Amino acid sequence: MSNPIEYADASAEVRAIYDDIMLTRQTDWVNNFWKVLAHHPPTLRRMWANVKEVMSPGALDPLTKELIYVAVSVTNNCQYCIASHSAAARKKGMTEEQFGELLAVVGLANDTNRLVNGYAAPIDEQFKSP
Amino acid sequence: MSNPIEYADASAEVRAIYDDIMLTRQTDWVNNFWKVLAHHPPTLRRMWANVKEVMSPGALDPLTKELIYVAVSVTNNCQYCIASHSAAARKKGMTEEQFGELLAVVGLANDTNRLVNGYAAPIDEQFKSP
Amino acid sequence: MSNPIEYADASAEVRAIYDDIMLTRQTDWVNNFWKVLAHHPPTLRRMWANVKEVMSPGALDPLTKELIYVAVSVTNNCQYCIASHSAAARKKGMTEEQFGELLAVVGLANDTNRLVNGYAAPIDEQFKSP
Amino acid sequence: MSNPIEYADASAEVRAIYDDIMLTRQTDWVNNFWKVLAHHPPTLRRMWANVKEVMSPGALDPLTKELIYVAVSVTNNCQYCIASHSAAARKKGMTEEQFGELLAVVGLANDTNRLVNGYAAPIDEQFKSP
Amino acid sequence: MSNPIEYADASAEVRAIYDDIMLTRQTDWVNNFWKVLAHHPPTLRRMWANVKEVMSPGALDPLTKELIYVAVSVTNNCQYCIASHSAAARKKGMTEEQFGELLAVVGLANDTNRLVNGYAAPIDEQFKSP
Amino acid sequence: MSNPIEYADASAEVRAIYDDIMLTRQTDWVNNFWKVLAHHPPTLRRMWANVKEVMSPGALDPLTKELIYVAVSVTNNCQYCIASHSAAARKKGMTEEQFGELLAVVGLANDTNRLVNGYAAPIDEQFKSP
Repeated sequence: MSNPIEYADASAEVRAIYDDIMLTRQTDWVNNFWKVLAHHPPTLRRMWANVKEVMSPGALDPLTKELIYVAVSVTNNCQYCIASHSAAARKKGMTEEQFGELLAVVGLANDTNRLVNGYAAPIDEQFKSP
Repeated sequence: MSNPIEYADASAEVRAIYDDIMLTRQTDWVNNFWKVLAHHPPTLRRMWANVKEVMSPGALDPLTKELIYVAVSVTNNCQYCIASHSAAARKKGMTEEQFGELLAVVGLANDTNRLVNGYAAPIDEQFKSP
Repeated sequence: MSNPIEYADASAEVRAIYDDIMLTRQTDWVNNFWKVLAHHPPTLRRMWANVKEVMSPGALDPLTKELIYVAVSVTNNCQYCIASHSAAARKKGMTEEQFGELLAVVGLANDTNRLVNGYAAPIDEQFKSP
Repeated sequence: MSNPIEYADASAEVRAIYDDIMLTRQTDWVNNFWKVLAHHPPTLRRMWANVKEVMSPGALDPLTKELIYVAVSVTNNCQYCIASHSAAARKKGMTEEQFGELLAVVGLANDTNRLVNGYAAPIDEQFKSP
Repeated sequence: MSNPIEYADASAEVRAIYDDIMLTRQTDWVNNFWKVLAHHPPTLRRMWANVKEVMSPGALDPLTKELIYVAVSVTNNCQYCIASHSAAARKKGMTEEQFGELLAVVGLANDTNRLVNGYAAPIDEQFKSP
Repeated sequence: MSNPIEYADASAEVRAIYDDIMLTRQTDWVNNFWKVLAHHPPTLRRMWANVKEVMSPGALDPLTKELIYVAVSVTNNCQYCIASHSAAARKKGMTEEQFGELLAVVGLANDTNRLVNGYAAPIDEQFKSP
């Protein structure tokens, strides 16, 4: 219900973050997630710093991180997040076959999570000391 | 609350599935998830067939599939599933650094999923045609 | 973390509700859910009135209502609720075979719910006018 | 965001599953859930096998299984699943009065699940041995 | 999928509740939540009694209660509930700055809840006796 | 399953964050949430910066922010988070009466969220333009 704040209508503070998003991602547009966060500039600034740090290459590669992001978003039914992070994953090389397997694993995990809840399976000793 | 059904106490039908689990995984034990499902043999048989098919190597490698499984289980707070699939991921090579990054992404996605919900961000045209 | 308030320690207002619970259920004890709600008597009184009305026989029989209660509690991973409502369902005739099928349906629904989320299936015209 | 794959555009493998869905359900159409799963034929085949097995009559009758399916879908807010399984339940005899009671129980369970979480009610001894 | 039942089409029983909603809230209209509940008058009557009691001023002021309501609705992704309770909060004085901070806290809590799940942090002794 | 890392065993980098936590909160101990995050120092550092910023006094007072945190944690059933943020709220003045009302609102919102899902109430025009 919050209208995205376009670049032309944004404050200098917000524009500077939009600029950094476009520079970092090597794109010429900013997606609506950031444009609605612009209604609360401290959140826009803080969340961009978080995403920039967490989603950058590390011990996990960027594509794997996007797959994990989609897995969470599908579990929570966030349609915007599924659309934006599936697009990001495709841009980083996700094939349709991989997307299909991703959803199969997410669905299965949501199933077995509930079977575990319902039967209240005790944690095996073998799993207790990592 | 359901006691795991041990091999010695299991029916021939259940034992055959336990045997296939151990053979497929090249282990000499079966974890409690399967031993509680044994209270309903059709579910034990069916879920083992699902896990065997979905978690086998495909377009996604087995470690990536385990990371996705942990991401869902952390989102849903299934402690048994987190313990068992973290162990499986470690066995397939997950480092503690990777585990740390996995949880960071899962936490962040759960955060931004709610910011999207709260601001009701409209889906960008660019994300609509995959 | 809230200690259950036992009958001996309860106010007259709370005791009257405990009495009504035992009378309605034809039992000589009150389970801990009500004893923790007793920390906030308006909630104890209000929730007992809700449970009494909603769970009484109507167009759905009491066992079916308990199965639905367990389905929700398993989906949400409320261990207390699973334990108490499974016990209530067993008292009303639920067999272990039925419990097994209940969990199988709950698991499957949690799976397909996510496949629908991930593929964003459009609602068929046939489902739009009930 | 995935377009349903119509019969005319489907592969022989997918058509065979669509045919089995229509034959099993005695209908002349296939709903969009299956048509989006067709983007990943192994998932289409596997999930149809699961649904066919789990939702067939057993210790629980088909209507009760549909009510449980709706209860989970309402808890998870899967609008497609609510629409399709409410329609299936109505076809199997669910009245509007029963639908109203179903939603009342689902709502109440979601409420008391959280009261239990918040007060951290300890599980009564009476519920520990089924 | 349930059409709202308008005042003109409502039974006397339903109209009396609509009248009480408008009188209590000092408004001349009833929002769709109540108009869809009117499909099951016992639920309409019962839920109005619950909302009237729980949301009235008490130890927590009405605005704080609305903020809590929005926090839950954002976590669960109930768009109708976010829209209606944000509107109610604004009517009771919520500023856009407060809405921004509310969402920031909700997002953060959803993040740290999962970090706790993933690392399975043991509860500190200091938190055990309230 | 992750052991908290005590001050004596922590690296200089981690100790500096523990010191800042104690200084900011004017306490002489650090709770286990931070001690498990210490397994991944970038997450410890980043999350402490987030919590410090988001939970500090702003347009919403610190107690209200804690109530919102508890509301989310109860909805998600994070027992550690409920314990720690209830303790924080009590320290900031939350009374038991307020805690009772908080849980009543959280429970009710979780109920009505599902009634809205089940009846698919359309958003009123009055709620569309904030």
